[in-house]
Amino acid sequence: MKRLALIVFFLGAAAGFPQGVLHVDASPHAKLKSVPVRAVKMGEGFWAPRMRVNIERSIPSLLQLLEEHGVMDNFRRLSGRKQAPRRGPLYTDSDLYKWIEAAAFVLQSEDRPQLRAQIDALVDDIVAAQEPSGYLNTYYVDERVKLRWQEMQRGHELYCLGHMLQAAIAYYRAGGSRKLLDAGIRFVDHLVEDFGPAKRPLLTGHPEFELAVSELYRVTRDPRHLELARYLLSGAERERLKLRESELRYMFSGRPFTERTQLEGHSVRAMYAASGATDYYLETGDAACWKTLEGLWRDMVTGKMYLTGGVGSRSAGEAFGEAYELPNRQAYTESCAAIGSMMWNWRMLAATGEARFADVIERALYNGINSGMSLDGTLYCYRNPLELGLEKIRNPWYDTTCCPPNLQRTLASLPGYMYSTSAEGVYVHLYHSSVLDWHLGTAAEPRPSGSGLRLEQKTRYPWQGRVEITVTPAEPRDFTVFLRIPGWSPGAAVAVNGQLWKAAVRAGEYLPVRRKWQAGDRIALTLEVTARLTAANPRLAGNAGRVAVEWGPLVYAAEQVDQQGVPLLFDAALVADARPRASWKPELLGGVVLIEHRGAVYEKPLAEEPLYQSVAAAGARRTRPATLRLIPYYTFANRGPTEMQVWMRYEPAGR
Amino acid sequence: MKRLALIVFFLGAAAGFPQGVLHVDASPHAKLKSVPVRAVKMGEGFWAPRMRVNIERSIPSLLQLLEEHGVMDNFRRLSGRKQAPRRGPLYTDSDLYKWIEAAAFVLQSEDRPQLRAQIDALVDDIVAAQEPSGYLNTYYVDERVKLRWQEMQRGHELYCLGHMLQAAIAYYRAGGSRKLLDAGIRFVDHLVEDFGPAKRPLLTGHPEFELAVSELYRVTRDPRHLELARYLLSGAERERLKLRESELRYMFSGRPFTERTQLEGHSVRAMYAASGATDYYLETGDAACWKTLEGLWRDMVTGKMYLTGGVGSRSAGEAFGEAYELPNRQAYTESCAAIGSMMWNWRMLAATGEARFADVIERALYNGINSGMSLDGTLYCYRNPLELGLEKIRNPWYDTTCCPPNLQRTLASLPGYMYSTSAEGVYVHLYHSSVLDWHLGTAAEPRPSGSGLRLEQKTRYPWQGRVEITVTPAEPRDFTVFLRIPGWSPGAAVAVNGQLWKAAVRAGEYLPVRRKWQAGDRIALTLEVTARLTAANPRLAGNAGRVAVEWGPLVYAAEQVDQQGVPLLFDAALVADARPRASWKPELLGGVVLIEHRGAVYEKPLAEEPLYQSVAAAGARRTRPATLRLIPYYTFANRGPTEMQVWMRYEPAGR
Repeated sequence: MKRLALIVFFLGAAAGFPQGVLHVDASPHAKLKSVPVRAVKMGEGFWAPRMRVNIERSIPSLLQLLEEHGVMDNFRRLSGRKQAPRRGPLYTDSDLYKWIEAAAFVLQSEDRPQLRAQIDALVDDIVAAQEPSGYLNTYYVDERVKLRWQEMQRGHELYCLGHMLQAAIAYYRAGGSRKLLDAGIRFVDHLVEDFGPAKRPLLTGHPEFELAVSELYRVTRDPRHLELARYLLSGAERERLKLRESELRYMFSGRPFTERTQLEGHSVRAMYAASGATDYYLETGDAACWKTLEGLWRDMVTGKMYLTGGVGSRSAGEAFGEAYELPNRQAYTESCAAIGSMMWNWRMLAATGEARFADVIERALYNGINSGMSLDGTLYCYRNPLELGLEKIRNPWYDTTCCPPNLQRTLASLPGYMYSTSAEGVYVHLYHSSVLDWHLGTAAEPRPSGSGLRLEQKTRYPWQGRVEITVTPAEPRDFTVFLRIPGWSPGAAVAVNGQLWKAAVRAGEYLPVRRKWQAGDRIALTLEVTARLTAANPRLAGNAGRVAVEWGPLVYAAEQVDQQGVPLLFDAALVADARPRASWKPELLGGVVLIEHRGAVYEKPLAEEPLYQSVAAAGARRTRPATLRLIPYYTFANRGPTEMQVWMRYEPAGR
Repeated sequence: MKRLALIVFFLGAAAGFPQGVLHVDASPHAKLKSVPVRAVKMGEGFWAPRMRVNIERSIPSLLQLLEEHGVMDNFRRLSGRKQAPRRGPLYTDSDLYKWIEAAAFVLQSEDRPQLRAQIDALVDDIVAAQEPSGYLNTYYVDERVKLRWQEMQRGHELYCLGHMLQAAIAYYRAGGSRKLLDAGIRFVDHLVEDFGPAKRPLLTGHPEFELAVSELYRVTRDPRHLELARYLLSGAERERLKLRESELRYMFSGRPFTERTQLEGHSVRAMYAASGATDYYLETGDAACWKTLEGLWRDMVTGKMYLTGGVGSRSAGEAFGEAYELPNRQAYTESCAAIGSMMWNWRMLAATGEARFADVIERALYNGINSGMSLDGTLYCYRNPLELGLEKIRNPWYDTTCCPPNLQRTLASLPGYMYSTSAEGVYVHLYHSSVLDWHLGTAAEPRPSGSGLRLEQKTRYPWQGRVEITVTPAEPRDFTVFLRIPGWSPGAAVAVNGQLWKAAVRAGEYLPVRRKWQAGDRIALTLEVTARLTAANPRLAGNAGRVAVEWGPLVYAAEQVDQQGVPLLFDAALVADARPRASWKPELLGGVVLIEHRGAVYEKPLAEEPLYQSVAAAGARRTRPATLRLIPYYTFANRGPTEMQVWMRYEPAGR
C-alpha cells in the first residue's frame, strides 16, 4: 500500500515536468543531471538538416515500411483486428517500439498532432495484444507458447520488453498517454511475480532490458524494478540455465557483470549491458560495478574502437575482436553498436562529469553514428566500414531493421545530449547553435527562486571553431559554466566578455568558468578546427604507414568519385603537406568542408604488382603527384557505389 | 563386356608397375608424368626427420586416437562386429580413409608388414559394412537412411567416398589388396546406375570426389568414371536442387566450374574443386576449363595467398576473403587448405611444366603445410596464422580431425613430388638428398631399351644453396635435365662437370640442361640462399610498413621466447641491417638456421600508448636498439604458448 502511494507520487511528479534522455535527478551517484529534450531548442547548423530529414523523411518512411512488412499486423492478429500470418524475425516488436521511441522524442521537442495520433493508434494496437497476465510478445504465441522463456539465449523476449518500456517512457515524457507505460509495468509486474532466484530463472539473452528497467525505476521508484536489474546483472542463473562459456561470451550476459574484464562477443549486447550496469551504478554506487565499467571502458578506447567511434569489428557474431583487431574494410561496426557506445558513455559521463566520455560520444555521434543514415534520410547503413569497394552499403530496409529506428531515436533525442546541470553549475557537452532554457540545480532539489538559466549558443561548429555563448541567469548568481575542450583541440582559448580567461585550458577536460554570471554575459570559445593528420598505434596492424585526416570532431574519408586523375584511390598515398586546402562547399553533400591534400599515385597499378616481392624492388616503385580530395566520413556512399578509404597510406616529407 | 575387358587390362597393367602420386602417364594433356613414390629414396636432410616422425609417431598415434574416438567402431557396428552408438561428426569415415591413404604411401616407399596388416584389418572392417547396393557411409544409417542424398550440401557422402577411393588406390599401388578398391568401384557403379542428368541429381557439397573419381578413371579407364567427374563439375543440377547463391559460393560446387571467376567460399572445398577440375583438364584438354583454372590461379597468387602458402583467411566459413584480405593474426589458413593448394598446383604443374606452380608448392610445403605438424609428430595445427598471442594452437586431436591425416599423407607421399619425367627428359622440382631410380619416357610408351635413369642428389638445402646431382643414364643419351630455379633466387648458377653452364639462368623457371648425358656426369647448382627481406603489396593493408624475413624457401618468424631484452615482441621493429647473422643451431628446434637481425624496441610499451594520436606525437616515439632472433615459421609454437610474428615492422636505414 505504501509502495503504491510512492509510485503514484513519482509518476505524478514526473508528469509534472519534462525529463531528459535519462532522468537521473534523484540518482544518488549521478554527478550530472540531464536536461529535458524540450528545454533545448536547436538552431541552424550542422545537425539541423539531419534532424529535419529525420522527422520529415526518415521517421515517416520507416513507419510505412514497418507496416508493409507486417510488423504492426503481428500485433493486430493477436487481438483479432487482422487476419495474417506472423511475419519477420522474432524480434520485430522491438523495431516498432524503437520507432515509437524516436517519434516520442520528436514530440518531446515540438508538438505534432498527427504524429501523436499515429503513436496513439499504434499503442492501441499493441496494448490490445497484451495478455491478461501482462505477457506481450508477438512471436511466442500460438504453437510457440510452450517455448516462452525456454530459449532465452536467443529469444529476445526481455529485449522486446525493454524497448517497449523505453518507448513508453519517452512517450509518457512527451506528455503522451500512460497507456503503453501501464502495459509495460503490467508485464514487468508479471516478471517480478514469477521470476527470480527462488522462482523461475530469467536471463537477458540480448541485454537491453537492464537499462530500460533501470529507467522504469526512475519513473516508478519501485525498488522491485531496480532489483530486477541487479538480479539480471548478477549472473545468478548461470548454473540453473546451464549456460555455456561461448554463450556467456557472445551474450555479454549470464555471468556476473563484475567478473567481466574485457569487451567480447556481440558488440551491441556488450554496449547495452554496459549501459545497464552503469544505470545500476548511478542508483547504487556499487564499487565493484564501477571498477568493472572502468576496465571495460579502457579496454574499448585502448584497442577496440575505430577512429569513427564504431565498435564491434567482426562480422562473425557481429562481435568485438581482440585488442587491435580493427580491420578497415572488413569492419562490421554496426550502427547500433556505435549508438550503444554513445548511450554507455552518456551514462559514464553522468556518473563522473569527465570529458573523456564526452569525447567518445562526440566521436561516435559525428562519425560512426551519423554515417548510418543517408543524407536524404531514407537509406541506412547496417555496417559502417572504414574502407569500401564497389559495394552497395546503404539500403532502405533490412529484415533485421534494428539500426534505422535506433538512428532515428538518437537524432530525435539529440537536444537532450547538449547540456547537463550539476550542483556546481551547467555543462556544455556539444557545440551547436541552440538555446537552453532551463534552470540550475536539479529537479530533485526544491527549485530555488532565481535559479532560472538561459544559455544561447551560436556557432558554425564543426565547420569552424568559434563558439559564442550568452549566459542569462534569471538573476546574477555564482556558478560554473563547464566548457568541454575536446581532446583533439590542444590550442583552445576562452574569453569572457572579451577578456581572455586566464586559467589553463586543457584539451580533453571541462574548463570550469566560475564567476558571478549576469544576464548577457558572453563567452567566446575558440577551438582549433583545422585539417590534422592522425596516426594509429602501430599495434593496429592495418593502419601502419597510414594516416587519417580529421577536421574538428569529423573524421574524413576519400571517395573515388572525387579523385580526378587518380584511376584508383587505393593506388594513392597522402604526401606530407604543410598547407592542406580546406574550402566550404555549400553544394557538396548538403554543405561540407572539402579538404584537398597533396598526394601521390603509383604509376603502375598495385593490382598489377606481385603480392610479395623483395624490399628493394618494392622500394623502387615510382609515383606521380596528385591532389587527393577528402569529404567527411559521415557523408560516404551518398553518391552511389564508389571506393572509399579513411586510413590513407602516408609518405612523410623528404622521402 | 568389352568395357569389362578393358578395365581388367588396365588394372592388371597398373598392378604390374608402381605409380606416382598421380598416374597421368596416359593422360593426353599431362606434359609431365609423375614418378612412382617408390622410385625415389629420400636421403638425410631437411625432410628426413619430418618423414621419420610421421611414420614412427604421427601415423601410429593417430590410429590409436581414431580408435579411441570410435571412428572404426562406426563401421564395426554396421556389420555387427561391435555394439556401440555412432560417434563423431558426419564425416569421420573420411578421417580413417585418409589415414589409410597415408599409411599406404608409407608402404609405397618401404615394406612394413605390421602396417600392412593393420590396413588389411581396417579394410576388412570397412568392407564388411558395405551394403549390397554398394552404398557405404556410417552416418546415413538407421533412422538417417531416409536422409541419404537428401542433404548433399552438407552431407559429405561423396566426400567420404572420394577419400575411400584415394585410400584404396594408394593401397593398391602399394601392392596391397584390391579389396577396398573393388568396394569403392562397387559404390561408384551404384552412383553411375542411379544418378545423373536423366536420373537422380548428384552434388558434391564438399568437392573431393571429382579428383578421386578422375584418379579412379586413371586406374580403370572406365569412361563412365571420367563422365561422373564432368557431370559434377558441370553444375547441371543447380536448378533441380534449388541451390542458393550463398551455397554455390560456399561449396565451390553446384555452378558450372567454368563460370567461376574467383576463389571464394570454403577454402578447402575451393582447392579440392580446382584440383578435380585440373584432373578433368589433364584427361580432356577442355579449353574453357583451363581458362577458368588460370584465372583462379592468378586470383590466388595476386591477392589471396599468404607468404606461407596458406590460403583461406576467414575463420567465418573457413573461407577465402576478398583480394588482399589477408590478416596475420586472424588468418584461418587451415592446414588442409594449404595441402589442397599443393595438390592443385601439382596438377597445374603436370599440365604445363611451368615453374610458377612448383614455386607455390614449395612455399606451401615448407611453410604453411610443414607448420601443421609439431616437430615431435603428435600435435597438429588446424589454423596456421602469421601472428599469434599466448594461445595454445597445437592439439593432439580435433573432433573435425581432417588436418592430421592430410598432413600425414602429404609427408608420406613426398618422394613422389621430387621429380617428374616428360618427353624431353627429367624435371627436378624439389631439392633434397635423394636417389631417383627410374627411367626416361613414360610408362604409356613402350619402354625404350637403355632409357633407365638414375639421379643422385646431394644437398643441405634449404639450409644451404648448393645442390649436386649425379646423372647416370643406363647408356649415354641426349635428353634434358630441367632444374627448377626458385622464384626467390635471382642469382643462381649451374655447372656441369665443373664447367659453368652458359645459358641464362632465370629465377622462377626451369633451366633446361640439354646435352648427351653419360654415367657419372655431375651437375652443381648454386642457389642464393641468404636472409632476405620481403615486402607485401601495399594493398595488403596489414603488412604495410612491415617486412618478412625469408631464407631460401623458408619463411621466418620471431617468437617471444627467443627475444632477450625485448619484453614484448610486438613492441619491436626490424631495422635495416647490412649483415643479418645466420648460424646453424643443431640443438635448436631439431636443427635450424637461426637469423639474428638488427632491431629496435619502443621504450614505452605500445599497449600503454593511445590508440590514436597526432602524427607528430607518434613520430616522437623513442626506441632503443635490440637484436631480434628469428626461426623458421614451420617450427613455431613448438615450445609452448609464446607470442609469434612473421611480418615485422621495419625501419629502413637512416630514419
